[in-house]
Amino acid sequence: MRARDLAEPFPTVSLDDQALDAARLLAEHRLPGILVVDGPATPVAILPASQLVRLLVPGYIIEDPSLAAVIDEAHADRLCDELTGVRVRECLPKDTPAPAVADADDTAVEVAALMARTRSPLVAVVERPADRRGGSGGELLGVITASNLLHRLLGNA
Amino acid sequence: MRARDLAEPFPTVSLDDQALDAARLLAEHRLPGILVVDGPATPVAILPASQLVRLLVPGYIIEDPSLAAVIDEAHADRLCDELTGVRVRECLPKDTPAPAVADADDTAVEVAALMARTRSPLVAVVERPADRRGGSGGELLGVITASNLLHRLLGNA
Repeated sequence: MRARDLAEPFPTVSLDDQALDAARLLAEHRLPGILVVDGPATPVAILPASQLVRLLVPGYIIEDPSLAAVIDEAHADRLCDELTGVRVRECLPKDTPAPAVADADDTAVEVAALMARTRSPLVAVVERPADRRGGSGGELLGVITASNLLHRLLGNA
Repeated sequence: MRARDLAEPFPTVSLDDQALDAARLLAEHRLPGILVVDGPATPVAILPASQLVRLLVPGYIIEDPSLAAVIDEAHADRLCDELTGVRVRECLPKDTPAPAVADADDTAVEVAALMARTRSPLVAVVERPADRRGGSGGELLGVITASNLLHRLLGNA
């Protein structure tokens, strides 16, 4: 069982996409995060849904939670205005780590080891030309989430 | 819109449940993590699927990734043996933060502020007797994930 057999399609956004579109994708697919790519096959980050929630909430409310209780429903509906015109690249926290990337030929155990080492909830799978292992370029096949990997490893348990 | 209206059912495990059962629940529901409770209504941790993957992988492979490539398929199928007899409480990393907990009466904005402040991907919702706000006890109504909250906040956008 190789990474290419484990990879599942996963929504992606690019750095210059609108943050509001990323939020809609996350909401629609009920995903904890979305893969951000730069070009067709270079995963650069995972944008967590919680980071977008964070951007929706005005800073003074994060600082003083008691103010949150007095924001009325009508204002809550306008929180999403905060994201209008913001691009995905502006939403990424400064310390966002690059996502873990497996080669299509990696075994399930190699993927598990990579996930364990990086403590990452998902690994992107890229098919690279043989002369460019470890470099950029190639084709993004999808992602392997920790729960999908558990599913495969538990298959016979 | 109150936390009780936003809460969705979410699988839970208790501290003394088998880690293998937690792994099966995560795999079955394709969840990035599972809520760990102590008693009927006290959320104590979120156990990430990636942590269980980490426990499946022998330490020497995490240390030396090149060894992962030589583990054969037959051995991969036995990785889950690592979890046999292990309890959930033994799987939680030492530095696991307590999960964010909202009161059933909190507004959507309060939940968003809590999520933003704790950078948590989900918030547990507990209905507490009026005289025990902030204390333990009560009834666990479910959880609100960041993507569900985005879904609700984007509803009219």
